[in-house]
Amino acid sequence: MIHTDICIIGAGPVGLFAVFEAGLLKMRCHLIDVLPQIGGQLSEIYPKKPIYDIPGFPEVLAQDLVDNLKKQIDPFKPTYTLGERVETLAKREDGTFEIKTSDETVISCKAVVIAGGLGCFEPRKPEIENLERYEGKGVYYMVKDPERFRDKKIIIAGGGDSALDWTIFLSNVASEVTLVHRNESFRGAPDSAEKVFEMAKTGKIKLLLNTHLKELKGDNILESATVIGKEKEEKELKADYLIPLFGLSPKLGPIADWGLNIDKNAIEVNTFDYSTNVPGVFAIGDINTYPGKLKLILCGFHEAALMAQSAFKYVYPDQKLSFKYTTVNGVNAF
Amino acid sequence: MIHTDICIIGAGPVGLFAVFEAGLLKMRCHLIDVLPQIGGQLSEIYPKKPIYDIPGFPEVLAQDLVDNLKKQIDPFKPTYTLGERVETLAKREDGTFEIKTSDETVISCKAVVIAGGLGCFEPRKPEIENLERYEGKGVYYMVKDPERFRDKKIIIAGGGDSALDWTIFLSNVASEVTLVHRNESFRGAPDSAEKVFEMAKTGKIKLLLNTHLKELKGDNILESATVIGKEKEEKELKADYLIPLFGLSPKLGPIADWGLNIDKNAIEVNTFDYSTNVPGVFAIGDINTYPGKLKLILCGFHEAALMAQSAFKYVYPDQKLSFKYTTVNGVNAF
Repeated sequence: MIHTDICIIGAGPVGLFAVFEAGLLKMRCHLIDVLPQIGGQLSEIYPKKPIYDIPGFPEVLAQDLVDNLKKQIDPFKPTYTLGERVETLAKREDGTFEIKTSDETVISCKAVVIAGGLGCFEPRKPEIENLERYEGKGVYYMVKDPERFRDKKIIIAGGGDSALDWTIFLSNVASEVTLVHRNESFRGAPDSAEKVFEMAKTGKIKLLLNTHLKELKGDNILESATVIGKEKEEKELKADYLIPLFGLSPKLGPIADWGLNIDKNAIEVNTFDYSTNVPGVFAIGDINTYPGKLKLILCGFHEAALMAQSAFKYVYPDQKLSFKYTTVNGVNAF
Repeated sequence: MIHTDICIIGAGPVGLFAVFEAGLLKMRCHLIDVLPQIGGQLSEIYPKKPIYDIPGFPEVLAQDLVDNLKKQIDPFKPTYTLGERVETLAKREDGTFEIKTSDETVISCKAVVIAGGLGCFEPRKPEIENLERYEGKGVYYMVKDPERFRDKKIIIAGGGDSALDWTIFLSNVASEVTLVHRNESFRGAPDSAEKVFEMAKTGKIKLLLNTHLKELKGDNILESATVIGKEKEEKELKADYLIPLFGLSPKLGPIADWGLNIDKNAIEVNTFDYSTNVPGVFAIGDINTYPGKLKLILCGFHEAALMAQSAFKYVYPDQKLSFKYTTVNGVNAF
């Protein structure tokens, strides 16, 4: 069992900065994230995109911001459980908490900070007949191990960067790659799209534009997919695997069942300390809601600062909190 | 008369960032500050001190943060009135405002954002008999024009960086410099203190430690000052000028008379948009107060973001506000 002062659920920019604010008040933190790395959406969805509205940065790449935050909190020696989803939260009689993850990791803590962003990211599923029947039996929403597709016939569906990038990559792994896209043009990077068009021209891949998937077939495992073209014509494609890549959609997940007041997929909090209706449980960043709420990273930073003051009072009800400026006192790490 | 959408009073970090948040919503800003440069306390009081709690900066010098913020808001072409103090605020019948400064500059605007930090900085006055009688007649709390002291006998009082720095600088200007300090050691930079001790040893300046000023004398203008040493011994020093350098103390100033709800030198605001009791007037940063308030720069950034949304509705009551992420849409400057 992992013991800590504050367990932070979500290791995105706001969860990371919460470690700093807690650390200034001498509270240790453990972070949990369902993603295999820290940084939340910034690292998972748009690591190379510039962000313009972080105060003091005229422009910063998302991953650079994450790296800077990591460096800023390292002195406070946070610990991490990554690649696991939080499942249950139990409050003990003494006011402390026990959190369990999908991999049975157990964290014992004195306060809980939910910095879960938009929630757990789950793949968006297109409307295809029998899609769910073949999940794990030919249908995969993510490419975790490209070797699975070695010398197989695969269909990739989608029109964004993931679809383009995996088409290019897997064209050297699979025996046959067919990219199915509903429109004529791609949303992904123009140079990737150009490469895919070029590969289709030379026959390295098959490209079906203005086409969508209708139905999947096969005895027990996937064997073929029916597609419909622009002129409503149907066509059956043999396939060992289908990889639908239509982006990730956030879900609140198990947190929704923790007895917290929820409004439209967000956790209701007080604005003086971003506490929830459960004493000792706070929610900061995109996952919370309150009058005037803006889903901005810079707002989550502020919420982390106010939360830490209140969390301190919950964790150490008998201790006096002394507020000190880092410019005057520096950062006293652990 | 200067016309603008939003007049921001105070050009410290929070006032500067407010230009960015207003600019994203296509509102133009004019900034006023009593100090002759932007940056507020950061540039005036501690430009070379590192700040550790700006999210994403493990360490940043105060002046560098100001420079970065300047660069971040430049695309929105803010205008400035510096070195002038705001005096009056009048609300017109149509809901717009007119602001006048100490130098009779008039600004017409649709909304007002007070980002005044701790207020106007005014010199701290030591307890010396007759001190105020000689203000402007030998007593100066700031060195605006060093040439005033050319070939004169001056006394500098204080133990911080200002006292040390001006002692060193004016030793090459005045005919005689005496530094009077209550203690034995200085609060200022060690290398400055060392230099002052060295200059005292070589006779370039006179240094009176464990000594404080008791009384000023002179017919109409300052002629001498009485000091008291460690052993209570009194001594009279001839002097043309006395420069007491005991730091700056913030005062709310004329803002206190604008009909805003004030609590302990801070302006009361709502937490959903940081609006004051006067519609169209907002207060952000260290100058405001609300439940849970922390006087942190990073909190002022958040307040600026929420304020801008609400100010937009005040400035353009008929327009629909569309909230866009800079990462998706970039920054569309003026």
